[in-house]
Amino acid sequence: MAVYTEPDDAALAAFVAGYDIGELVSCKGIAEGVENSNFLLQTTRGPWILTLYEKRVAKADLPFFIGLMEHLAGKGIPCPTPVHDREGRAIRELAKRPAAIITFLQGMSPRRVTLEQCRPVGDALARLHLAGADFAMKRRNALSVEGWRKLFADARPRADEVRKGLADEIAREFETLAPHWPRQLPAGVIHADLFPNNVFFLGERLSGMIDFYFACNDLYAYDLAICLNCWCFEPDLSFNATKARRLVGGYHAARPLDAEEIEALPLLARGAALRFLLTRLYDWLHTPKGALVRPLDPMEYVRKLRFHRSVKSAAAYGL
Amino acid sequence: MAVYTEPDDAALAAFVAGYDIGELVSCKGIAEGVENSNFLLQTTRGPWILTLYEKRVAKADLPFFIGLMEHLAGKGIPCPTPVHDREGRAIRELAKRPAAIITFLQGMSPRRVTLEQCRPVGDALARLHLAGADFAMKRRNALSVEGWRKLFADARPRADEVRKGLADEIAREFETLAPHWPRQLPAGVIHADLFPNNVFFLGERLSGMIDFYFACNDLYAYDLAICLNCWCFEPDLSFNATKARRLVGGYHAARPLDAEEIEALPLLARGAALRFLLTRLYDWLHTPKGALVRPLDPMEYVRKLRFHRSVKSAAAYGL
Repeated sequence: MAVYTEPDDAALAAFVAGYDIGELVSCKGIAEGVENSNFLLQTTRGPWILTLYEKRVAKADLPFFIGLMEHLAGKGIPCPTPVHDREGRAIRELAKRPAAIITFLQGMSPRRVTLEQCRPVGDALARLHLAGADFAMKRRNALSVEGWRKLFADARPRADEVRKGLADEIAREFETLAPHWPRQLPAGVIHADLFPNNVFFLGERLSGMIDFYFACNDLYAYDLAICLNCWCFEPDLSFNATKARRLVGGYHAARPLDAEEIEALPLLARGAALRFLLTRLYDWLHTPKGALVRPLDPMEYVRKLRFHRSVKSAAAYGL
Repeated sequence: MAVYTEPDDAALAAFVAGYDIGELVSCKGIAEGVENSNFLLQTTRGPWILTLYEKRVAKADLPFFIGLMEHLAGKGIPCPTPVHDREGRAIRELAKRPAAIITFLQGMSPRRVTLEQCRPVGDALARLHLAGADFAMKRRNALSVEGWRKLFADARPRADEVRKGLADEIAREFETLAPHWPRQLPAGVIHADLFPNNVFFLGERLSGMIDFYFACNDLYAYDLAICLNCWCFEPDLSFNATKARRLVGGYHAARPLDAEEIEALPLLARGAALRFLLTRLYDWLHTPKGALVRPLDPMEYVRKLRFHRSVKSAAAYGL
């Protein structure tokens, strides 16, 4: 849940008046995104999203994120389009933070992922990769192998506070993955955080993808591996192979995976699980008691990691 | 900030289909109200509010709250109107909780109260009292003198954890107020929680009053005394007499206060400060570390209480 910053009344009114989006009639903080403060604005011309970028999003990265959304939306990907103000600016400032108004997308993110939702997600992810291929800007993935190394160095001395033996388990995993991490697979702009809460559906139709604030340049198949982790496990953390087959099948039909990508998928899925394990572990160990945002349980990703470690080949994912 | 319960996708769709409000296209948890889970629904016919009543709101009280909003809205008071479903029900069930859809009100609640907002608030409060006078149902104020006694009995042993001497200060205050608490002043339905975050403005026009979940039958002037506490102190807790004069003046013009009400106002303002002090103290002492909702500081109301104790007559409030 977000909403960290409440803009001042007069400042908000002046800010909105800078855009040609109608008269402001309402502004409500919404529980969407965890990195930023988000507001649902209603104007006389309909709903819009106002985002204030909090410190976890680097200001220098905003032109990449905003430019990417604009690029993808222009190619028909169902993602928010940044709105430009009367002077042509898509990034401005409000409450001493970088701020943007983006278009409102219809749809609801699934609380419980259904079988029927997995194929459209795979399809949409592939189309996002294809549409992003000619985006001119680049952003390195700060949460790939080198990022994991730093996160783990920080968390290692206290990891066993979460579960005895966790530090050793992560160390072994990292030592296995790091030297074998693939570098030559097809790469380009990836979403890198396409969790169910970042995808909207209207009925069975995928109507939107949001929250591009981890987007970066990395392996396409790694983005699919992230989705295997966040779309294909049941609440009891059992792996649903039918969901995986549909997710991967939807992707493969729109952007066929090559033989190297398929072979690498189990390893990439382990890496993706390790990535979310490490950021959750970091948050778990660094969130002060009594904080407004409750950290997510790192152990969920330990279990997912163990599943992927047990996998013999990409056949486990329906390939 | 609220949103405690996330309804299941299919259950939400079925719930909304029970109303003649158009097709559901979006549902976002909003940071509004602290007692319930609130969602801003967008349908093909516009925005609506969905409330799931959490356990702090007694189910038996819902017909009073819902009926009152309907009564007041019917008399032109700018408050939400409960929407009836296709079978005529205004209170239903969703996610195992009582649930209601109410109309969406335009406007924004002030983050910083301006001078210009105080007279409209007084006026609207008086009109609410007048419009509620013939509402047929009754609800006792559970947070009047007897309620304070119970809250204080609970908090007393630990009150000095918040500030040394606080238990004694509250005890003295309670012993002064309880025997002199007025019983014969004009009474009827009051809002009892008309804080700035429960009032919406569009420009300088008061466009809405929300959150009727503390409404009850009690002294009209006590409701005004509550507003003196929550509208007329500056962020540094200095009392702004100009704001008070406008608030009370706006009220008095629409519903003239009688001599007894005016005389009682300083005492009522002390009681109102004590009421919020005690509930905040209760929450402060009972909120577990790491809870999602951060309790508000009880000391704010200790300072307000001390101000009202220093007041010689209602002249301090501009009367």
